[in-house]
Amino acid sequence: MQKALITGGAGFIGSTLADQLSVDGIEVVIYDNLSRGRREFIAEACARPGIEFVLGDVLDEELVRHSLEGCDTVFHLAANADVRHGLDQPQRDLEQNTIATSVVLEAMREVGVHRIAFASTGSVYGEPEVFPTPETCPFPVQTSLYGASKLAGEGLIQAYAHGYGFVGTIFRFVSILGERYTHGHVYDFCRSLHQDPSRLRVLGDGRQEKSYLYVGDCVTAMRLATERPLEPGAVGIYNLGTDETIVVDDSIATITAQLGVTPDLEYTGDVRGWPGDSPLIHLDCSRIRSLGWQPTLSIRDAIRRTVVWLEQNPIFLDELTAA
Amino acid sequence: MQKALITGGAGFIGSTLADQLSVDGIEVVIYDNLSRGRREFIAEACARPGIEFVLGDVLDEELVRHSLEGCDTVFHLAANADVRHGLDQPQRDLEQNTIATSVVLEAMREVGVHRIAFASTGSVYGEPEVFPTPETCPFPVQTSLYGASKLAGEGLIQAYAHGYGFVGTIFRFVSILGERYTHGHVYDFCRSLHQDPSRLRVLGDGRQEKSYLYVGDCVTAMRLATERPLEPGAVGIYNLGTDETIVVDDSIATITAQLGVTPDLEYTGDVRGWPGDSPLIHLDCSRIRSLGWQPTLSIRDAIRRTVVWLEQNPIFLDELTAA
Repeated sequence: MQKALITGGAGFIGSTLADQLSVDGIEVVIYDNLSRGRREFIAEACARPGIEFVLGDVLDEELVRHSLEGCDTVFHLAANADVRHGLDQPQRDLEQNTIATSVVLEAMREVGVHRIAFASTGSVYGEPEVFPTPETCPFPVQTSLYGASKLAGEGLIQAYAHGYGFVGTIFRFVSILGERYTHGHVYDFCRSLHQDPSRLRVLGDGRQEKSYLYVGDCVTAMRLATERPLEPGAVGIYNLGTDETIVVDDSIATITAQLGVTPDLEYTGDVRGWPGDSPLIHLDCSRIRSLGWQPTLSIRDAIRRTVVWLEQNPIFLDELTAA
Repeated sequence: MQKALITGGAGFIGSTLADQLSVDGIEVVIYDNLSRGRREFIAEACARPGIEFVLGDVLDEELVRHSLEGCDTVFHLAANADVRHGLDQPQRDLEQNTIATSVVLEAMREVGVHRIAFASTGSVYGEPEVFPTPETCPFPVQTSLYGASKLAGEGLIQAYAHGYGFVGTIFRFVSILGERYTHGHVYDFCRSLHQDPSRLRVLGDGRQEKSYLYVGDCVTAMRLATERPLEPGAVGIYNLGTDETIVVDDSIATITAQLGVTPDLEYTGDVRGWPGDSPLIHLDCSRIRSLGWQPTLSIRDAIRRTVVWLEQNPIFLDELTAA
């Protein structure tokens, strides 16, 4: 890899990846519409030589094409990542995840860039029957528009690989935590406790079992798998997570202990936190581990690291709209 | 079922379904842009009371919405069904299969119609490792843009079921044969032999193992599964095919015997007829059989019936562009 374009490169995971790549002397085009990405996340990377920032939307095929010149690899991370509110705006997942992936692939095809790494999600497993869930589990049924839109993106990449000789690596993430995390479960809890440390409303019954992975470990795994030499047409599919899970109540205990608060807990009481929420997420990550990767942080340490970062950067708790 | 809208209702399968439903006194809105559908296929159905034809495209959400008034069920069959040439126009599968399905679902949601039957394809299994392939086979990898676009449609329907209480039936077809068949493998052979009975060019090595199902049997199965009472949110997924397969060379022998011709055969020689072609398609259809359905015609009889119909209607061999 000599030069990579990262869609969503100013976002949580994208900017962390941009940091890692730029430190290693790889040229990077950070492509982001700054809808959720932030300039301060990429300020350090952009100060390094060979790093370029393009303010643009992934639906703008001409700009994507233009920005791809000289690149050999695309990390396609730009997406609508709001699983919970998918039902309010069903078109958003279609446009920003499925159609956007098609636009990126078409731009790549026209320019002749054939290597793509894709941020998919463990949500494509819906509510699986096999735990921990391997990449080859029984053909799943989708339970969220987010998962469905990411599955559609996976299918497009696989078809482009088979038909046009693209090389793809697809990563099915658990929830990712760490510095620059401003979206999701743990964020919502921290934000609520920041506003009112005396009480916390919990969607669901607190017994959902979740998986998390530290963003630094996520990015290391993505690079490792994407930099492997693969034949044209090959697609590598990797679950990315830790081998543990944590129940929501234990996440909350870890957060409140770190913050030193003792809120009253109110549960909405359902098995699922919201329609499309999975009561249990636990991915079998032995495939990515077989490449020699392993996470450096446990789930609890990843949660603590996230809470510390949010405490040190309260602007993200005050300023952003909770997702 | 009292009133159904059939997208692609003037097409091969859609018009056969319209015939069956209208004979049974069910009101039908035949919705078709006549890009491949034909007025003569629906002339008989349209002469019956309660049958309406709407000339429109499935991407026209307003017209779909308007046409849905009073319906309780949608059979969504409109699609780009050209597997082989997907790589020439990758946007076509995305628009006509994935985005069109989203448009139909949104129109249904706005009007309050919640039951949808969807023509998917055995191509979503890519090149499976399990034969006969059950609906719950290991999570497949897509090998064609057509399969990927249909998988995306399946995912949307599943997410709409889970999120909005839709009821879905998804049918993964093998290739369908019978009267009004004007597109695909057997058609291409008949058309070529119609033009020049002395020779036949065969894509691939002639050893691909294919499955076919007679259109009358296909439509009977679709109705049976779709008319079952299902809870809101439920999705039934059914392979539709016969329990046999046939190798391409035997299909050709059946066709040439029926036509009374003895062409010289030329093979292009590859294991796959074209990129995305499956060397072996054999679906496990025990799930639909467990509902009491069984096919009335064998593959060979379905081929013969198709060849006879094309002989009797040579206009379809002369007029249409081979797909």
